Amino acid sequence: MRRILLSQGGGGEETWKLIKDVFLKHFSNEHLEKLEDATLLEIDSKIAFTTDSFTVNPLFFKGGNIGKLAVAGTVNDLAVMGAKPLYMSVGFIIEEGFPYEDLESIVVSMKEEAKTSGVLIVAGDTKVVPKGTADGIFINTSGIGKVLYEGLSCRNIKEGDLIIVSGGIGEHGACILAQREGIYMDIELESDCRSLWNLVERIISSNAEIHAMRDPTRGGLSAVLHEWARSSQVSFLVQEENIPIKEPVLGLCDLLGLEPYHLASEGRLVVAVPEKEAKKVLEIIKEHPDGRDAQIIGRAIPAEGQPKVILKTSYGTHRVLDPPAGELLPRIC
Amino acid sequence: MRRILLSQGGGGEETWKLIKDVFLKHFSNEHLEKLEDATLLEIDSKIAFTTDSFTVNPLFFKGGNIGKLAVAGTVNDLAVMGAKPLYMSVGFIIEEGFPYEDLESIVVSMKEEAKTSGVLIVAGDTKVVPKGTADGIFINTSGIGKVLYEGLSCRNIKEGDLIIVSGGIGEHGACILAQREGIYMDIELESDCRSLWNLVERIISSNAEIHAMRDPTRGGLSAVLHEWARSSQVSFLVQEENIPIKEPVLGLCDLLGLEPYHLASEGRLVVAVPEKEAKKVLEIIKEHPDGRDAQIIGRAIPAEGQPKVILKTSYGTHRVLDPPAGELLPRIC
Repeated sequence: MRRILLSQGGGGEETWKLIKDVFLKHFSNEHLEKLEDATLLEIDSKIAFTTDSFTVNPLFFKGGNIGKLAVAGTVNDLAVMGAKPLYMSVGFIIEEGFPYEDLESIVVSMKEEAKTSGVLIVAGDTKVVPKGTADGIFINTSGIGKVLYEGLSCRNIKEGDLIIVSGGIGEHGACILAQREGIYMDIELESDCRSLWNLVERIISSNAEIHAMRDPTRGGLSAVLHEWARSSQVSFLVQEENIPIKEPVLGLCDLLGLEPYHLASEGRLVVAVPEKEAKKVLEIIKEHPDGRDAQIIGRAIPAEGQPKVILKTSYGTHRVLDPPAGELLPRIC
Repeated sequence: MRRILLSQGGGGEETWKLIKDVFLKHFSNEHLEKLEDATLLEIDSKIAFTTDSFTVNPLFFKGGNIGKLAVAGTVNDLAVMGAKPLYMSVGFIIEEGFPYEDLESIVVSMKEEAKTSGVLIVAGDTKVVPKGTADGIFINTSGIGKVLYEGLSCRNIKEGDLIIVSGGIGEHGACILAQREGIYMDIELESDCRSLWNLVERIISSNAEIHAMRDPTRGGLSAVLHEWARSSQVSFLVQEENIPIKEPVLGLCDLLGLEPYHLASEGRLVVAVPEKEAKKVLEIIKEHPDGRDAQIIGRAIPAEGQPKVILKTSYGTHRVLDPPAGELLPRIC
């Protein structure tokens, strides 16, 4: 089996060959091919800029791998700010001895995932570190997008806004957890990892008024709602039975005593809209293949002291949802 | 001693506290403080975009640390493309148990280094991985700059161009090597790690015609000249005695049998200019505190077959400089 060598990160001839044989081969475009220290780009509008590092374990999981996740994660961070993803950089930190084929299949996934939203990989960097000083491969992606819809912000949620979730929550987190712990459910868990730009583009081109969007990654739906509550000084009243959660995710949570609202998604959208727009936006989301299970899950209400997230159970009782805290799941993304 | 905990990378309350207490505290600016998934920026021109991951070992070295290196490295990649560094993202991958104080001192160095060129850190991400799955801390920085001087390119070197080096080469590589191997010279080796934007700004605002600039990092001066030779299809004839190299660097190279031309610099500039501009550009560089030891080291000549880098020794003999290859030094940057 061919393996990545230290010399392939040294900046010499071997590095050049790796760049040519793997990265340029798959990511090829006019910007990247120039191989300068920085890429020159023409941009004529307000931009969005974001960065994320990915350390997920296992590197390959049902529904994706670290490469697909890295591209989708950065695409999604731009999309939820109303920005069309244009350009992306990729930084690899690879452990010496990492299988060459695995690197190439990660790179191919990145290429394919980038295609789905039209983002171009225009800048890159590769470091190889000695065996034992990293775990397989870590990837950083940074992205630049063109802002098409302005005003989206975690500070922008108003009392009365309705909250829409685009599909079943916690599937990425549950999949990683099950795979890492060797737990197999009757119905296999699959990560929801995907790029949300196409879905977001439909929403923002509908001219509906949108107050905020977020993809619920680390800390799950709970982290998004708590962050919005803190930033906008509102509370949320959520109908627990309306939150879409697939059976295998519920099953895993029951088994391990976990709260599904804290589990990460990597292909779901949470949207806050004024009540008058909610039906229209829900319809747009449900028409898209990535949003068929979308639901209105609750609404923003006056904070009344400390902002909180209140779950109304199907029995009519209320409980306060704690913000995610503690170790949760390391290396979920 | 306070140490970084896994929970501080989980996306929950502890992550929020770390962001507030360390990153926002030091990097504070209106963009970063918004804490959105992506930062919105106004840019009205052609931009340069670059990324780099830093895995240097040791993390703290004479003349800098991984944080200073990360900021300077990204500033320099923008500067050598003629771009004024405007915005930067920072992604941290931190090993569980990493000393909190070390993280804070790295962050303070980043803040200070960013100030020297006026670049703003506007986006960030933090992951904490379990003990043993990374070595201390890895940092990725991506940067956006505004292009002020167009046309710089590794493809742009013409026969007859003179090559200027801004100061002693190989000091970063020699310092890291000596410190890692526990070798102490009579005169201590210090990394040349620094941001080159101020120096570059003077050069490009002089209206001199410049063909290419590069900072000789991994693979050293040799890698830059070989890359330029390949991309521009020229050879280089270099007067070996004109290459500025400090005594302790030469001493270390003698001791270990290394070629100083392959050792990394992190604060030096290599510039290719038409002969008619060389004196003027050399003077501008020498007037700057970071360029006092600048020298014209050689010139581009017709390739005549395979492009090569030819060293003319002080005895008048010639030898061909091999491109950097093999393991060189892992984790030099």
